[in-house]
Amino acid sequence: IRTKLPKVGTTIFTVMSQLAAEHGAVNLGQGFPDFDVPPRLVDALTQAMRAGHNQYAPMTGIPALRQAIAEKTERVYGHRPDADAEITVTSGATEAIFNAIHAVVRAGEEVVVLDPAYDCYEPAIELAGAVPVHVPLDPVTFAPDWQRVRDAITPQTRMLIVNSPHNPSGAMLGAGDMQAIADILRDTGIFLLSDEVYEHIVFDGARHESALRYPELRERAFVVSSFGKTYHCTGWKLGYCIAPPALSAEFRKVHQYNVFCTFAPAQHAFAEMLREAPEHYEQLGAFYQAKRDAFAAQLATTRLRCLPVPGGYFQLVDYSAVSDLDDAAFCRWLTIEKGVAAIPLSPFYAQPPSGQRLARLCFAKNDATLAAAIERLQRL
Amino acid sequence: IRTKLPKVGTTIFTVMSQLAAEHGAVNLGQGFPDFDVPPRLVDALTQAMRAGHNQYAPMTGIPALRQAIAEKTERVYGHRPDADAEITVTSGATEAIFNAIHAVVRAGEEVVVLDPAYDCYEPAIELAGAVPVHVPLDPVTFAPDWQRVRDAITPQTRMLIVNSPHNPSGAMLGAGDMQAIADILRDTGIFLLSDEVYEHIVFDGARHESALRYPELRERAFVVSSFGKTYHCTGWKLGYCIAPPALSAEFRKVHQYNVFCTFAPAQHAFAEMLREAPEHYEQLGAFYQAKRDAFAAQLATTRLRCLPVPGGYFQLVDYSAVSDLDDAAFCRWLTIEKGVAAIPLSPFYAQPPSGQRLARLCFAKNDATLAAAIERLQRL
Ligand SMILES: CSCCC(=O)C(=O)O
Ligand SMILES: CSCCC(=O)C(=O)O
Repeated sequence: IRTKLPKVGTTIFTVMSQLAAEHGAVNLGQGFPDFDVPPRLVDALTQAMRAGHNQYAPMTGIPALRQAIAEKTERVYGHRPDADAEITVTSGATEAIFNAIHAVVRAGEEVVVLDPAYDCYEPAIELAGAVPVHVPLDPVTFAPDWQRVRDAITPQTRMLIVNSPHNPSGAMLGAGDMQAIADILRDTGIFLLSDEVYEHIVFDGARHESALRYPELRERAFVVSSFGKTYHCTGWKLGYCIAPPALSAEFRKVHQYNVFCTFAPAQHAFAEMLREAPEHYEQLGAFYQAKRDAFAAQLATTRLRCLPVPGGYFQLVDYSAVSDLDDAAFCRWLTIEKGVAAIPLSPFYAQPPSGQRLARLCFAKNDATLAAAIERLQRL
Repeated sequence: IRTKLPKVGTTIFTVMSQLAAEHGAVNLGQGFPDFDVPPRLVDALTQAMRAGHNQYAPMTGIPALRQAIAEKTERVYGHRPDADAEITVTSGATEAIFNAIHAVVRAGEEVVVLDPAYDCYEPAIELAGAVPVHVPLDPVTFAPDWQRVRDAITPQTRMLIVNSPHNPSGAMLGAGDMQAIADILRDTGIFLLSDEVYEHIVFDGARHESALRYPELRERAFVVSSFGKTYHCTGWKLGYCIAPPALSAEFRKVHQYNVFCTFAPAQHAFAEMLREAPEHYEQLGAFYQAKRDAFAAQLATTRLRCLPVPGGYFQLVDYSAVSDLDDAAFCRWLTIEKGVAAIPLSPFYAQPPSGQRLARLCFAKNDATLAAAIERLQRL
């Protein structure tokens, strides 16, 4: 069989989780919490099943959930999307990203991706027959250089993908970045795909600059988010896409024939949770900030050096004081020999910067898990 | 926006369900049961959530579920697929069909589809940049004419899609059909996509001829099934694909970057259910045969004429004694004026046969629902 995706292997997240399991390592690799979902969400989901909500949901998602997402969006970003025409519930943000790309990007067109980038963008672009064009972020601050983005744009460019808070770096786009994006996209036929799955995990009083806050951006944007990160249930695979009606119509054509609809009982549970417990997402930044700060304080007792974490639940560490190995080899060694699984940064790049000595540690973990990891990391 | 899917509108299932809701019609249109999932499945799912299985499942599905599918397949079809290399759990059969097509079909290639066909095949083929080639089934028996299939094959043909028990007709492929498919595909590079979601809903002692029974077929086949039809939970969106290792590898490349994994707690629930309650799927044919027979007996008191139903949960009826309307107009009229929603057959065809007067009624309903429908249909 001649493969259509020659570059695709098993994701680094799966590889490192398996390695962690084999070697009994503390798994700070793949990004998922090891604490549990809010019990009221489990109760609401159970309730929905017992109430008989077990048949096909509407293709776009149940109205109550789309309404709740519209209300939440207005409350948080000051803009209320139309629940009927602009919101589509998906099988996680991954499906939403896949659909958005397949909905509007054609064979031979180009999509600009900022490196390092989450790993699902490029294969979706390639499967659509399109060409990913990689523009590097600053290797130290992970800030975009908008002039380089501008230079990368050609008549074939159909989409720009941004991600804030950023995985793997935690960097966040500011209001100036949003203005720069608007300037670049104005009067072009280029769509924006804004991956905002860590939207509620932002620190130090910073404001998440959702593309939804900016009229000029949201009129051409697919804004993607997910409940997995916000509600500690990455395995529930529920996300959504907000896009203007004409873009949502194209998005839904793909969604309708890709998965048709998503697990119905969870939709009822999140509709209730969003409406009745807004404090959950409002307090999430503070919840994770405490974890970030405690973890960084403990890491200061090791020979790893912490980079700043404006948002998200990953701590980048510079290990150059510990090892000269490249990041892939270091993370394998750290997992196998030292019992802590981490994610190397090179798989997030088309062209990894040479000599970069960074690893990603997930701090969405119980204090005991983080303490066990620190104890091992102190022996480095 | 120039659409990539000009032919795609809202599916007929959604259209008719909405019309049914607006007009208070008994909804025998969209195929879903109006009775509930087995309570032990709800309990097992709840248990899985409470046990903390709420983070990412492995991309391919949890091992216990893949093992249980392998065991069930061996028990039912006498062939045990490799749980690690050959089984992938998906967000329903729809995602599996989408992935299989995108995994191996390239732009410009052709896929042979037998009409009438379930509506998700063609848009997936077109999104992959490929060309659906429609071969009609017999308009009365819905049997394939394998000579016509053979004639439709060209050097560009990459895949043949079959569906047994067949939606919308209920027709089933026999052993002779499977042999004919093997003969046609032998020594070609053509893959088989076998949609077997109604595999356990077969009647009158007939045997479901899964492609998995036939070594020559399964070595080139993506065999797709779903728990939605078997366990009365179409809204849970859990299905799977069984394919040889090389095909599964390509399939998984798409799945990994399309949805990554599926709702984890349900995977635990089905692993338990498949293993501990095989009688559920073993008795499903008898369960639905009783419904089919009771419904047909009641329909005999109306002016609708029943076609034979070898499998599945749909009854085709010929309404030519009642109306001269085309099927789309008839089904609208039946829903709005007579209070029973049905699905017309023409949307299942690229070229609907002229003068066909058939509608599809779903009998996966409580006796009371079917009785209410019959009462209204008796007034025709
Ligand atoms: C889908 S597994 C990857 C989880 C994740 O978002 C990450 O670790 O970056
Ligand atoms: C995905 S809605 C369609 C349900 C179904 O399988 C049918 O009615 O044929």
